[in-house]
Amino acid sequence: MEIPLFELNLQADLDNDRPETMGAVCAVVYLLTIIVFIPWAFYTELVAATPGSSAYDALTEVPRVDGGRIIQRFPHNKLASYLSAILSLQSVAILGISDDLFDIRWRHKVLIPAFAAIPMLIVYYVDFGVTHIMIPVPFRPYFGELVDLGFFYYLYMAVFAIFTPNSINILAGINGIEVSQSIVIAVLVMINDVLYLSPFTKSPHPAQESHLFSLYLLVPFVGVSLALWWHNWYPSKVFVGDTYCYFAGMVFVVIGILSHFSKTLILLLLPQFFNFAYSCPQIFGVVPCPRHRLPKFNARTGLLEPSKAKFEQPLAKPIQEVMKLLHKMKLLGITIDEKGQVTESTNFTIINLWLVWWGPMREDRLAASLLAFQAACGIIGLIVRHNLAPLLYTVDNLFAA
Amino acid sequence: MEIPLFELNLQADLDNDRPETMGAVCAVVYLLTIIVFIPWAFYTELVAATPGSSAYDALTEVPRVDGGRIIQRFPHNKLASYLSAILSLQSVAILGISDDLFDIRWRHKVLIPAFAAIPMLIVYYVDFGVTHIMIPVPFRPYFGELVDLGFFYYLYMAVFAIFTPNSINILAGINGIEVSQSIVIAVLVMINDVLYLSPFTKSPHPAQESHLFSLYLLVPFVGVSLALWWHNWYPSKVFVGDTYCYFAGMVFVVIGILSHFSKTLILLLLPQFFNFAYSCPQIFGVVPCPRHRLPKFNARTGLLEPSKAKFEQPLAKPIQEVMKLLHKMKLLGITIDEKGQVTESTNFTIINLWLVWWGPMREDRLAASLLAFQAACGIIGLIVRHNLAPLLYTVDNLFAA
Repeated sequence: MEIPLFELNLQADLDNDRPETMGAVCAVVYLLTIIVFIPWAFYTELVAATPGSSAYDALTEVPRVDGGRIIQRFPHNKLASYLSAILSLQSVAILGISDDLFDIRWRHKVLIPAFAAIPMLIVYYVDFGVTHIMIPVPFRPYFGELVDLGFFYYLYMAVFAIFTPNSINILAGINGIEVSQSIVIAVLVMINDVLYLSPFTKSPHPAQESHLFSLYLLVPFVGVSLALWWHNWYPSKVFVGDTYCYFAGMVFVVIGILSHFSKTLILLLLPQFFNFAYSCPQIFGVVPCPRHRLPKFNARTGLLEPSKAKFEQPLAKPIQEVMKLLHKMKLLGITIDEKGQVTESTNFTIINLWLVWWGPMREDRLAASLLAFQAACGIIGLIVRHNLAPLLYTVDNLFAA
Repeated sequence: MEIPLFELNLQADLDNDRPETMGAVCAVVYLLTIIVFIPWAFYTELVAATPGSSAYDALTEVPRVDGGRIIQRFPHNKLASYLSAILSLQSVAILGISDDLFDIRWRHKVLIPAFAAIPMLIVYYVDFGVTHIMIPVPFRPYFGELVDLGFFYYLYMAVFAIFTPNSINILAGINGIEVSQSIVIAVLVMINDVLYLSPFTKSPHPAQESHLFSLYLLVPFVGVSLALWWHNWYPSKVFVGDTYCYFAGMVFVVIGILSHFSKTLILLLLPQFFNFAYSCPQIFGVVPCPRHRLPKFNARTGLLEPSKAKFEQPLAKPIQEVMKLLHKMKLLGITIDEKGQVTESTNFTIINLWLVWWGPMREDRLAASLLAFQAACGIIGLIVRHNLAPLLYTVDNLFAA
């Protein structure tokens, strides 16, 4: 198909103005904030390094083997965690910016978070090295209470690191959706974190430090995201770009892995999971995938409608049957011609599916209702997590303390 | 002065093509390399964490107080150093890229390296905390052998961190000069590092690990710089941008501070120091400073000539006298009108001064001869450092081992 010249020019103009890089500005401000925050995160320990302070006196009873060098008591492993977290986030920011600037190919950029996760996984290896998982009670007769996954646990973390940023990046395309889904997830994680902090538990909780670490990273993240949201919500003045999506995803990966609650986080990412699973037929080419899958704007009504993929050649019979089945289950909109052939279907994204379910709607209502769905899923997830865990693992780590 | 329209367009085109960002590509490749290198840098220790290996057996005799957790023996402080080095380099790369993209104001971007240095200075504080300096023998009667600079030592490091990247950034403007001066300095530091490694010293040198750390960071740096040099040498196809200059400077800052040889490094940066000191009158506005100070291309001869600053209003009498004095000392080219007023002078950069000394020359010859000068200064600096140190400090740390 030939593209008219004026469209090409428009595209070139868009490329030159680069409104996309606003996510990069957001990431840079965030990174500067958490770098400047380092001394505060380690305030007690830094003060403890000064003889004469009360914190120092409290520490002097710790037995030492190295002849009493004061600086040895500094929690280097905690600092290494914090630094590796910043490092992973910076790496993903740099790679995201490169992507926004140079348009890296899809099959390369999927792996961006894997590179960025290296520093974090190495610190995980040397600091925690915990690769066993607790088996839910019903399966314990077969596997025992703990199973050491060894290498596979690192594979799990790598897959988690690749999946999360990309899943946020594909649940995108309408004003404000990328930023606001990240804010919703971050706020839910923060609520979960606060539950572990002192006033809500009887004694200091063993996981308190992990959840404090998670808050250190999330509070400024919500801050910069709100600023971006202000400009990116419908009608948006700036775009967030791949940088923001990867960056936000990586924030979740970092806290999930280094604060040890990746499974809880997966509960909060269920809509993203569903969107990814639902997208698979198009991502892996079972069903033809157009260049863009965002909903179609109907200029007459001012509403968004589900966008459709047209099939020039008829699809294989079994695929058509599956699509008809999905249509009956209200999981897909399809058009059938007089010969009974599926000639087009709505694109396989949760955004289009939402429009199939609830009919055409305005862009901001679409985004807001998807967010309400995200928040509802997350809240139910958290409630289930803290109530179901005692059944599956005999005890929930929150109420155990 | 009105700028003709076609010049404005040319500028806009240059901005859009952004050949400047090649330094960013270079920095990103470098960062990925040293991130992927992390496990190799800690190979012995990572292997030691596996019970049964010979390295593990060698370590088991280390007394432990924490109930025998293996991972505690991992050198977290070394890892924190390495991570903080990468972090500082990444920060400077991100800020450099922002600068190339958004054109940050001069008075803000001077401080870029200071932000980037924060992670490194914090690791310095908790890991080494060494803030005393050795006093040269002639001054010992007055100050004692060691003086603890305390806070001022951090100030010194911050100034060093701000100064080095900026000094490379202002010794710039002709094809290839930024990259090749960095390569020359890096190679000289590497030669100095190699002197401390085993085959050259009788027993393992106490500073061996520091110099190994420096080599870890410098070998890939020289690698990416040579690739950039290939395209940036006269006649250049790409530009390096502020990103590269800040980045290269920060590499030197990081190894200088974390490997404890910032004073040796200053010896290798003498031409940059001189250039900065020489530039001060224009930087601080004592003498009017034009927008660009690069040498002027003479299209007729094909040679570069010193560029000049014209003084619309006559300068203050004392300044004119100093300029005439500098002219007599062959440190400045000036033009004097019939009234004895200085109406113009060459710009205050070492590149222009070089052209004043040796006359107009082709761009590549100019760059090559400046580099030869840089290399000569550095080699003399290193020889002096290892021969003069025994006189000033009673012993040189290289030959002491």
